[in-house]
Order: sequence, then C-alpha cells, then structure tokens
Amino acid sequence: MTYTLVLVRHGESDWNAKNLFTGWVDVDLTEKGRAEAVRSGQQLKEAAILPDIVHTSVQRRAITTANLSLDAADRHWIPVKRSWRLNERHYGALQGKNKKEILEQFGEEQFMQWRRSYDVPPPPIDADDQYAQTGDPRYAGLGEAMPSTECLKDVVARMLPYWETEIKPDLADGLTVMVAAHGNSLRALVKTLDEISDDDIAGLNIPTGMPLVYELDESFAPVARGGRYLDPEAALAAAEAVAKQGR
Amino acid sequence: MTYTLVLVRHGESDWNAKNLFTGWVDVDLTEKGRAEAVRSGQQLKEAAILPDIVHTSVQRRAITTANLSLDAADRHWIPVKRSWRLNERHYGALQGKNKKEILEQFGEEQFMQWRRSYDVPPPPIDADDQYAQTGDPRYAGLGEAMPSTECLKDVVARMLPYWETEIKPDLADGLTVMVAAHGNSLRALVKTLDEISDDDIAGLNIPTGMPLVYELDESFAPVARGGRYLDPEAALAAAEAVAKQGR
Repeated sequence: MTYTLVLVRHGESDWNAKNLFTGWVDVDLTEKGRAEAVRSGQQLKEAAILPDIVHTSVQRRAITTANLSLDAADRHWIPVKRSWRLNERHYGALQGKNKKEILEQFGEEQFMQWRRSYDVPPPPIDADDQYAQTGDPRYAGLGEAMPSTECLKDVVARMLPYWETEIKPDLADGLTVMVAAHGNSLRALVKTLDEISDDDIAGLNIPTGMPLVYELDESFAPVARGGRYLDPEAALAAAEAVAKQGR
Repeated sequence: MTYTLVLVRHGESDWNAKNLFTGWVDVDLTEKGRAEAVRSGQQLKEAAILPDIVHTSVQRRAITTANLSLDAADRHWIPVKRSWRLNERHYGALQGKNKKEILEQFGEEQFMQWRRSYDVPPPPIDADDQYAQTGDPRYAGLGEAMPSTECLKDVVARMLPYWETEIKPDLADGLTVMVAAHGNSLRALVKTLDEISDDDIAGLNIPTGMPLVYELDESFAPVARGGRYLDPEAALAAAEAVAKQGR
C-alpha cells in the first residue's frame, strides 16, 4: 500500500517570459504555459495516474494550470481545495523587478542569496507598492500572517501546516492527490518529503508543467527519493534551464 | 440583509451546436460557449457582484464555464464545490439523438412531452449504450441513485437536497454564491425559489452564459420574483431562441 502524490509546477507565465520576479503578483500563463499545462494532463492520462482531488494555491497561474491539466486528463470533475499556503514565495521588494537588472545592480552574490539562500529574504515590499497585495480580498483574513517578503524557510513554515492538516489526510484516505503550485512552494514540499538539508535545497530546481510523481509509504516517506518525472529527459533539460534564469 | 445567489447556465456546447440531446454526456463548450462564459464573468465584474464560492455540476461544460467566468471576474481563487446533483437532466435513450430527427420521428406532442412535461421521462438508456455513463468513475459511488432517465420532477428531487444542505448554508453564512450548471438543474432551482407550478415551469427558459441574480430574504424567498439578468434585453432574446430549439 503506497500513497500517490502528483506535483505540478505551473507552466510559463507572462512574467517568466519577461524575466521578472513574480512572487505573489497574480500574473497569467502564456500560451506556452497553457500548452505545458495541457501536456502535463495528457502525460497523467497516458500514465493512468488519475488525481482524485487537487490542491492549488490561490494564484491564477497555478489554478489555470490545474484546470487545463485536469481537463486534459478527463479529471476536471474532481474536488478542489485552495490555500494561500501553497502560493509562490513572496519576493518582497523584488516583485515586478527584472531579474537581469537586479543581477547587474546588486551583483552575483546578493542575487543568488536572494534567489537561493534558505533563510535570507529580500527586502520587504512597501504596503503602497503597486505590486503589494494590499486590500486583495483573497488575503483579507490573513492578518499578521500576510507576508511582506519571504525566504524559503518562511515558505516551509507556512506550507507545512497545510501539508499536515489538508494534504496528508487526503493521501491517508487513499486518494491520488495533485498539488498544482509554484517553484518555491513545491521546493518547500519536496524538501520536507526528501529530507533535503537547508544547504542542499539550493540546488533543487523543479521544471514547469511536468508532473512529478511521488509514491509514499505509510509514514509518508518517498519509496524513491526525488520521485519520478513521467518524462525524465525533458524534465532534466527543463530543470537546467530554470537554474540558468536571470543570466 | 439579503443573500445573493448567481445562477449561470453553461454557454453553447458542441452538442447544442449540433442540435443533439446531451443530458449526462460530457461534451465540451464550443468557442462561442467559451466566449459566453468569459462575458458572463465580465458582466459580474462590471456589476461588482463577486462570488465568494462556486457550486458546479460534475460536467465539463459547467465546470469550464465556471472556470472561465470566474477568471474573467478575477474570482478564480474562490472555493469550489461540485456535485452530480447539479448535473443536467439525464435524457435517457434520447442522449446523442438529433432533436430535429426525434421531432420528425415521434411528432410534436411526444417531443414536447419529453422536453417540457414535468413528470414524463424519456425511455431509459441501456447500460451498454455508447452514451450511458456505465463505469464512469465520477458516478461510481451513486449506486441506486444513478439515473437511466429523468423528467424535471426527478431533477427537482435530486437537486433539492443539495440546495438545502450545501447551497443554503453558504448563503446563510453571508457568502455570494454562484451556481454554474445546466438548463434543467437551474430550472429545477428556479422552480423552487419562485414557487412555480408544475404546469408553468414548462414555459420557463434560461438563456446560456448570462448571470441570473437572485436577492433572497432571510427565509430564502426572492425579493423580486424571477431574479434579474445583468443584461435583460439580451437574456430575453436568448430565452426565446432556447424555446425554439429543435425547430
């Protein structure tokens, strides 16, 4: 008896394409991103890995990815749960900034620290910044939990309660669970599953629009560390491309 | 204090366009149907009627309508509930048949009885019919409740428990509730809300892709009988077109 968990990172977004830091800004998918989402659903259907329930963030690019992917897999009708705890990392004052310009302005070391350090967040975003979510009704109930910037450690801290109280129980019920989310919320989840150290998580890149399937034992430990991609060669090439972003 | 309920009938489907009886067959929207869904979301946004939760059937054309409509209204992130109890009427042995051919074959009286009588269902579908949902995983748990044909009275009977136990409590919580569903499941709901007689419901046609907004008092009675369309003239023209289907 194993549990099946399917992780899908949203496909290319408008701001991926423009090389901007996105974070909590609610940008849409590009046409390429939509095609990636459809392809991920087709891969699931071909592999007969059929989600019984889907968990998404409250951000458009993950929600649309889930919608398109499940439609392509003929699983459009399954139950849906959403939570801000699956959102992308909040990128603070970097949201809306060009990655290449930030790299040039602050240099390689600072750039990589903001992108890949475990516990150093970028500077916080101002409440009156055009890319702050001040007044967004979907976050109205968050109060003090509303971030103004996050490092990956912060993402792990706010994602973990959702894993424990919402996703694990669905797995324990024997459901095949899909999580449609973001680069960093999925890195946070994979770090937890594979018990990756705070240092080593920096080297982990999850490609967009490619289902990553974990079989978990009854204590929710991966049967195979790292899970498996349904198209491993394409996933490897895509992960290398993610690592090179901003160059 | 009133409650706000928004009803949206899915836009044009592949089989609407082909003039076939559809029922529980899980056909997709046409491009026109997708545009209708987007337009309904734009209307909601313009009217500042913003759903806090959406209820859909488990059929693709209603689910995609909800997805596209809520995306256009910037409400893609709200919670979602789905139930087979909001499905279209099961059209029995007529599913997949051409409406015009059935009209010619069986005559006006029989045709209108199947389409518009309150309590006469079409002949049941055979379990081995290509358009039966035998073995469809989304209905695996239904057992004896799985219909092989339905009249509108049957739809009322299976829709009402969902209205009572799922939709009403959300309204009572003060949530603006969207129901994205089908011609006959919405007629069943409107019949209940407006206390329309078994005879008079035959004359009620709900147009596709146009939000129908009910304000309900604390006993869930409509403040204005019949609710209101956000674009009343277009809705009237569309309802007249529905009444003429099959001709």
